[in-house]
Amino acid sequence: MPDLVLLRHGQSEWNKLNRFTGWVDVDLSEQGVAEAAAAGRLIKERGLTFDCAYTSFLRRAVRTLQLAQQQLDMLWLPVYTDWRLNERHYGGLQGLDKAETAAKHGDDQVKIWRRSFDVPPPPGGEPLDVSDHRYAKVKIPDGESLRDTLARTMPCWQERIAVDLAAGRNVIVSAHGNSLRALVKHLDNLDDEQIIDVEIPTGAPIHYRLDADLKVSERTFLTGK
Amino acid sequence: MPDLVLLRHGQSEWNKLNRFTGWVDVDLSEQGVAEAAAAGRLIKERGLTFDCAYTSFLRRAVRTLQLAQQQLDMLWLPVYTDWRLNERHYGGLQGLDKAETAAKHGDDQVKIWRRSFDVPPPPGGEPLDVSDHRYAKVKIPDGESLRDTLARTMPCWQERIAVDLAAGRNVIVSAHGNSLRALVKHLDNLDDEQIIDVEIPTGAPIHYRLDADLKVSERTFLTGK
Repeated sequence: MPDLVLLRHGQSEWNKLNRFTGWVDVDLSEQGVAEAAAAGRLIKERGLTFDCAYTSFLRRAVRTLQLAQQQLDMLWLPVYTDWRLNERHYGGLQGLDKAETAAKHGDDQVKIWRRSFDVPPPPGGEPLDVSDHRYAKVKIPDGESLRDTLARTMPCWQERIAVDLAAGRNVIVSAHGNSLRALVKHLDNLDDEQIIDVEIPTGAPIHYRLDADLKVSERTFLTGK
Repeated sequence: MPDLVLLRHGQSEWNKLNRFTGWVDVDLSEQGVAEAAAAGRLIKERGLTFDCAYTSFLRRAVRTLQLAQQQLDMLWLPVYTDWRLNERHYGGLQGLDKAETAAKHGDDQVKIWRRSFDVPPPPGGEPLDVSDHRYAKVKIPDGESLRDTLARTMPCWQERIAVDLAAGRNVIVSAHGNSLRALVKHLDNLDDEQIIDVEIPTGAPIHYRLDADLKVSERTFLTGK
């Protein structure tokens, strides 16, 4: 009966500034740091232990994991990083203010970019720093729909995370709103319509207890309230 | 030509208090935090990049790695943890004040425990917290000689670190005085006598450039001086 915890990173500097972030590697805000530590305490109160951790290539997710590990007294967990757990790539919207973008393109268009299943944002995202070898072997997308994001996240589940769980290892995943939606869609067996309305809150860990076939036997949103 | 950096953790709370530490999981001191960050800057100034990181199960080594990664802007590295990179287990000496121990047992005896190759310290170390599952699959030693420490560190090199290096991946290892001596003994081809006199300073990274057979082609101690 392996345990799986999904944790969305705490508030980032650009969440706070209301900017589209995507693959831009912004840090946690002060509030985000506090949220990450609080999430760690919630997981600890539930008495969960882990054997390994997964996170993305983006520092807001890595740091959220580290801060939670510190609270859990589990800094010793191996941490597997994978670009496929990155946030949805927001293409030409990355870095733009959400309100200004709505003023320019209209609320309806922005809603389609943000909330549709298979409409990608416009391309033209600021190129990532090419001196950074973290993506050397990755074909960096330039704008992903939610469908695109799920399509590249699921192989990470199948090849890596599910393999650990099937071996009886408990896993914590610190990632992003949209990469976590891929995992939630799969685990909760949601269709392409149902996943559109799912929002994963920051700093509120989701605890799945799985059976030997990795079907969900129990799902709990951990909250401090 | 893979690059390998060995980094001993920064000063711990018990280094500062002059106590035998071993597997007791004490944190970095304030000075240790500064040393770890300074080490990260030294490595960055040398222009090194990495593909993965190794560390022990002990927080002073994990945190040193995290602090160096932060300076390097490489929080995204996968971090493989392995108990075999832990510090030498100091048995019945763990937790004792080094000066008091010398007063009780004599300087010569303490020097033998600290500096001989194959004399283990006396057994009787405080048992580690058994509720801690990190060592669930490990036969915890109760006092290791330097020989014992090297004997369990080397398989970690052979099975894991050397495999990454042989595949052309650059590796940073954040660990402890004695587990790193195992790697230095092997890399620098030192005999059982020669390794006794080798001291690995805290916070001063050692950069090895290796050839395709993982023989040392260049070794550099990185210092800020």
